[in-house]
Amino acid sequence: MDIVYLNGEYLPLSRARISPLDRGFLFGDGVYEIIGVHRGKLFASREHLLRLQESLKAIKLNIKVSIKQWEDIFIELIKRNKAADQNKYIYLQITRGAETGRSHLFPKGNIKPTVLIMLGDSHLPDYNRLCKGYSAITRTDIRWSYCHIKSISLLANVLASQEAEIHKATETIFIHDGFAIEGSTSNLFIVKNNVLVTPPKSKRLLGGITREIILKLAKQNKIICKARSIAKQELFDADEVWVTSAARDIMPIIKLDNKLINKGKVGSVWQQMQRAYYDYKEQSS
Amino acid sequence: MDIVYLNGEYLPLSRARISPLDRGFLFGDGVYEIIGVHRGKLFASREHLLRLQESLKAIKLNIKVSIKQWEDIFIELIKRNKAADQNKYIYLQITRGAETGRSHLFPKGNIKPTVLIMLGDSHLPDYNRLCKGYSAITRTDIRWSYCHIKSISLLANVLASQEAEIHKATETIFIHDGFAIEGSTSNLFIVKNNVLVTPPKSKRLLGGITREIILKLAKQNKIICKARSIAKQELFDADEVWVTSAARDIMPIIKLDNKLINKGKVGSVWQQMQRAYYDYKEQSS
Repeated sequence: MDIVYLNGEYLPLSRARISPLDRGFLFGDGVYEIIGVHRGKLFASREHLLRLQESLKAIKLNIKVSIKQWEDIFIELIKRNKAADQNKYIYLQITRGAETGRSHLFPKGNIKPTVLIMLGDSHLPDYNRLCKGYSAITRTDIRWSYCHIKSISLLANVLASQEAEIHKATETIFIHDGFAIEGSTSNLFIVKNNVLVTPPKSKRLLGGITREIILKLAKQNKIICKARSIAKQELFDADEVWVTSAARDIMPIIKLDNKLINKGKVGSVWQQMQRAYYDYKEQSS
Repeated sequence: MDIVYLNGEYLPLSRARISPLDRGFLFGDGVYEIIGVHRGKLFASREHLLRLQESLKAIKLNIKVSIKQWEDIFIELIKRNKAADQNKYIYLQITRGAETGRSHLFPKGNIKPTVLIMLGDSHLPDYNRLCKGYSAITRTDIRWSYCHIKSISLLANVLASQEAEIHKATETIFIHDGFAIEGSTSNLFIVKNNVLVTPPKSKRLLGGITREIILKLAKQNKIICKARSIAKQELFDADEVWVTSAARDIMPIIKLDNKLINKGKVGSVWQQMQRAYYDYKEQSS
């Protein structure tokens, strides 16, 4: 993460500084994306950047940068960080800029958005580790009502992630009105009787890019897919539970609230899909 | 807002800079307080700082600074900004500090919280303006479930404030399950048949310092007070509607969703309480 992009400049992270009046710092008034870099190549960047446009639109933040322009910056950043052939991720954050004072209201006048782009080390677990499975916990969904926006106002997610850590788990799955929605940093899938189920897109969850790719690949692999609500108890009765994201790929959960899923073994549908997903990444990056 | 306090240093705002890895900037992972400065003197700072301790505890952010130490910094900041005798406000923000990477999990090791303290210009309206009353709108409460924490993850509040602005209103009152909760930057009171009503403290609203002072002064003024839930329709049927905060004092709402409250006139209980509140400020600062 040595060279970062900040407001048009490439500079060492140690020299990158922002104003304390930045609305990202004062209000969490911004959005972000995380884009996988597989062996030095962008993975699904167009899909992520299209979602970024949706997030920006939802919070009424106008910035005129094309997908091509964003990708050029990402590629330049990979180059300047000598990360060709490496597994990394691009972190892109846009805030509503820095004003001269502090007001909840959108800035009046010509305030430029703040753009930060960094390259981070990928912490994707290797296949052998994935095969051992992971633990998760369930908690009441305390987040706001617009979880379809990938916003930087993430305190609820921070607290939920830390709660998982305290319980030696890797993820917290949010329960809203009795239904499992998604993880604090991931989407949710279950497998029951060889049918793959994930909650349908709504304002309560992020329309994950990894989620979309999994649904596409599952169909290609003749796996029956259903987008429908998942009652909390279904998690415990499932043959398989997965949490998915660009930073996690497809992560099999074998223990939930200290109860074993599928007797504590990762499932066969996960095995099949993990391979299909990895192959797809190899081909598409 | 010329001289600010940042992590132990007093320095010009133009030189105050934070890391883009600050968790306030990346995650909205912090809390804040706004403390009135009335004619150069701190108003109810102890109460605000006690609430700050509650917010810090709720997000598990440890920082060892006593009330006296915070107040000394505030007083020094007022002095350095030559603001004796002026009406201002202190803005205090504490975040979970800056790490070397980006992880939702709390930092491991000895990461210092980031402390920013600034002096802002008070925009308290004068008495003649207040007497004309204000407009507000109602909207579904889209915020998270822990609104008792004064967190900087404020995007929901930003969007709600801007929504009010678009509708030429001064505040958005949040409605949750049919009940009026509070404003996007204020607490809520109504008066009906000379009884003062405000929603009871809960995780859905901020326990306002101004709210507490108003309840105390109302009792001293022999006004009957009730802390109970307020159905949305009660707002429109009320004799008076107020929104209150350290930055607004007691602001009478005479138009809600374009319908007049009390035929568009501020009420007599507001008149009485606004005077009592101002006198209290004069005596207590």
